[in-house]
Amino acid sequence: MPDEPWESQLTHTSSDGIRIRGYDLSELIGNLSYPATLFLLYTGELPTPAESRLIEALMVASIDHGPTTPSALAARGSISGGGTLQAAGAAGLLTMGRHHGAAVEACMAVLQKVVSGEPAAAVIEEIAARGERVPGFGHRQHKERDPRVDRLFELASKEGIATPHIEAATAIEDALRTSAGNRVPINIDGAMAAVLGDIGVPAEFANAIFITARLGGVLRHAIEEQGMTPMRRIGPDHTYPGPDPRPLPEEEQR
Amino acid sequence: MPDEPWESQLTHTSSDGIRIRGYDLSELIGNLSYPATLFLLYTGELPTPAESRLIEALMVASIDHGPTTPSALAARGSISGGGTLQAAGAAGLLTMGRHHGAAVEACMAVLQKVVSGEPAAAVIEEIAARGERVPGFGHRQHKERDPRVDRLFELASKEGIATPHIEAATAIEDALRTSAGNRVPINIDGAMAAVLGDIGVPAEFANAIFITARLGGVLRHAIEEQGMTPMRRIGPDHTYPGPDPRPLPEEEQR
Amino acid sequence: MPDEPWESQLTHTSSDGIRIRGYDLSELIGNLSYPATLFLLYTGELPTPAESRLIEALMVASIDHGPTTPSALAARGSISGGGTLQAAGAAGLLTMGRHHGAAVEACMAVLQKVVSGEPAAAVIEEIAARGERVPGFGHRQHKERDPRVDRLFELASKEGIATPHIEAATAIEDALRTSAGNRVPINIDGAMAAVLGDIGVPAEFANAIFITARLGGVLRHAIEEQGMTPMRRIGPDHTYPGPDPRPLPEEEQR
Amino acid sequence: MPDEPWESQLTHTSSDGIRIRGYDLSELIGNLSYPATLFLLYTGELPTPAESRLIEALMVASIDHGPTTPSALAARGSISGGGTLQAAGAAGLLTMGRHHGAAVEACMAVLQKVVSGEPAAAVIEEIAARGERVPGFGHRQHKERDPRVDRLFELASKEGIATPHIEAATAIEDALRTSAGNRVPINIDGAMAAVLGDIGVPAEFANAIFITARLGGVLRHAIEEQGMTPMRRIGPDHTYPGPDPRPLPEEEQR
Repeated sequence: MPDEPWESQLTHTSSDGIRIRGYDLSELIGNLSYPATLFLLYTGELPTPAESRLIEALMVASIDHGPTTPSALAARGSISGGGTLQAAGAAGLLTMGRHHGAAVEACMAVLQKVVSGEPAAAVIEEIAARGERVPGFGHRQHKERDPRVDRLFELASKEGIATPHIEAATAIEDALRTSAGNRVPINIDGAMAAVLGDIGVPAEFANAIFITARLGGVLRHAIEEQGMTPMRRIGPDHTYPGPDPRPLPEEEQR
Repeated sequence: MPDEPWESQLTHTSSDGIRIRGYDLSELIGNLSYPATLFLLYTGELPTPAESRLIEALMVASIDHGPTTPSALAARGSISGGGTLQAAGAAGLLTMGRHHGAAVEACMAVLQKVVSGEPAAAVIEEIAARGERVPGFGHRQHKERDPRVDRLFELASKEGIATPHIEAATAIEDALRTSAGNRVPINIDGAMAAVLGDIGVPAEFANAIFITARLGGVLRHAIEEQGMTPMRRIGPDHTYPGPDPRPLPEEEQR
Repeated sequence: MPDEPWESQLTHTSSDGIRIRGYDLSELIGNLSYPATLFLLYTGELPTPAESRLIEALMVASIDHGPTTPSALAARGSISGGGTLQAAGAAGLLTMGRHHGAAVEACMAVLQKVVSGEPAAAVIEEIAARGERVPGFGHRQHKERDPRVDRLFELASKEGIATPHIEAATAIEDALRTSAGNRVPINIDGAMAAVLGDIGVPAEFANAIFITARLGGVLRHAIEEQGMTPMRRIGPDHTYPGPDPRPLPEEEQR
Repeated sequence: MPDEPWESQLTHTSSDGIRIRGYDLSELIGNLSYPATLFLLYTGELPTPAESRLIEALMVASIDHGPTTPSALAARGSISGGGTLQAAGAAGLLTMGRHHGAAVEACMAVLQKVVSGEPAAAVIEEIAARGERVPGFGHRQHKERDPRVDRLFELASKEGIATPHIEAATAIEDALRTSAGNRVPINIDGAMAAVLGDIGVPAEFANAIFITARLGGVLRHAIEEQGMTPMRRIGPDHTYPGPDPRPLPEEEQR
């Protein structure tokens, strides 16, 4: 049985070099940011400056959430047993399922319904009727809105893009307060879904961007674990002896 | 047996938000690039603008190497059997070992020896005596120097940083030509090792940066595979029906 | 925040040793077969001799399906890039999704409906109406019934257990022939589902037993790949230079 | 570039069925145990009855070591984040490195030296001089010899096989007591290495057998976690509310 022929539209390699969606990778190096190059690879076209800055902001927002997320703990466990850095990263990825990270994709589908005209109250009732929670809303630790969310929405507004998905997210937040009587704020997954929806990135790419951005953080935890006792019992309780809160130097602020 | 106490110096989460090495993540969002935030998380301090641009360039250089790398094929195989995007990414990471990606770390150790004063010829003889190849040099496909390498070295030079590791890499390349009689050019792993060495990033971080940057590409292949026949026999032979070579628009060039 | 307390009913370790579901592991060693010990760990009780022999038979049936299954190819890719044996095994597992291996669990749910009284024809119509195939039926390569299926059903019958799930599988096979006009035989996933259903093993355990049994095969492919050229392009086309067909010696036959 | 041709000596599939090392898989089903079939797949030949029983015993000994091994915790973390059973198994495998499981292979190399005539005292001095521990000796929890070790050695002796590797392991244990002044008993990894060495199984297969046997246990922990709260903070502290110690029924004892 001969191989089935297949096609790949992404990257072409030859003795002349590597071309991403037709662009010479050597030309991209030094001219395009990493998030913009991801956007190109994922969508087939270069992002606008606004799109590029917003993807960058989302990647920064996703980079790490502390040492006791399932992904960081699994990566630490891998190192603790003697695994390689790659193995630790893979173990970390394998904890990112429905309950950890993948809510971005699920939330985009929900926002899409509201953007298409379904009332927010009807959408959340339908989800509640299935005994489920609205993906992208609520957080274990933050009863108030996650400050990263406000920051992302502020950036989207500053970029002047149309924000129907952000408005849908806010409508759902309001509907949840009315129906539940207490605050179930948009979380970081929900904010990513809203911003990515507004710049027109498909849901599956949203998930990939989160996973990639978070891997950078997970691997850093794995490296920290390399200096610790092998096979220690890794529980969630730990202390933070790092630098005290400090402001970003003025020259870094835009 | 009570848990052993442990410390993590990276990220502190509280009801006030998330702080990376003391900086409020909400403040980093929109102000710092993703590669600069990685640098902060990995080293504990903000990068200089030159360091930030060079890490960015290295991440762009690493993003993808076409559909038949072991990592892209493994990710496709995972999707083909019905795996999730996370599983596909993990399967991809698991192919990045000594022969695929991890050469960055090994090459840094070699360059370090030359930078410390050992003659390049002696260093490569020692490696050859063990029956091994010099990590970071030579490539299946490129007999000439990979154009990405020239581009990275050109950027490092433009940034005006001291380049002892790049010079060490060139010295090894020369020594290899003398001893082997033919060209064994610096490859992209070697170039990453040289540039990261020159900006003072430890070897283990170099490896993590490559893995993170490449995951972005691997996940894109996994998404492309989602549209194909499940359980197809995936061989390396494929065609590229994507856009023809095209230049980067002038406004994107710096 | 203190750890949430949690309970595990499986294995208790102390300075006296390890107890699986109350039994001393040292006493199980040499007295119980591996499949019987799995049964104990999974269900909480020792299997009957018939159950023990059937689980054993299912594990043998699942051990390997040749070098071009997605799982074997992914494991080979991992070794080819320089991965460890563990990484190769993990990469192999990550290809076992809906289309490769996990059909056992899905098929059990289908068989259960027929066992509960729903007519086979109605069950397959319902699945066809969703545009899906019946899990556990049909195979790329075998147009006729897989010989392993006949063997498993013959063993179940020899053990004298009640076989409502095997009968349900046969009823679906008949209904598929009537509706499709051609043969869509029960495959090995379907046979596992039927036999495990008849010995009362829950669906999630069925999946775990398949995954464990197949890992043994996948790791052997990984070890074979360790002797091959790193980073070779691994396509599905290969030859088999191993021993010619040979019968099992008489003293091994029961 | 055409595919490089490659050969696989393990399993041949055709429309007639599947042959493992020349034997018809349908004929193996019901006649050969799973461990014996593994032995065939790994070594190319059928095991003797003694070899078959000893591999079986080693697999049973390896099946599980309680809920707080790195592999069980990583698998639980994967389920807790929403991962699949396959992903949980893979995450578990990724913790099995130098410090967790892979000591079998390393210990075999050490025992081999003693079997080849090097004095045990010299071998352990050499390892201590590198600042390392002797793989396969010592355990966090058991100060006395692990009861599983005694059981395995007793079985090997009952089978009447030559036991030079077991004797080498005992010689190292004695030498460690003399040099260290306290007991550093052979652990389960060391016992596996000794028994597998005595039945002539190569080191890489030993590792694979451990990994496969342990996966069965790891997946059971993953299934138990499926019933718990998603994203709970999984620490090592837990209770065991399962059955009290109970003896194996007489009819199961051989």
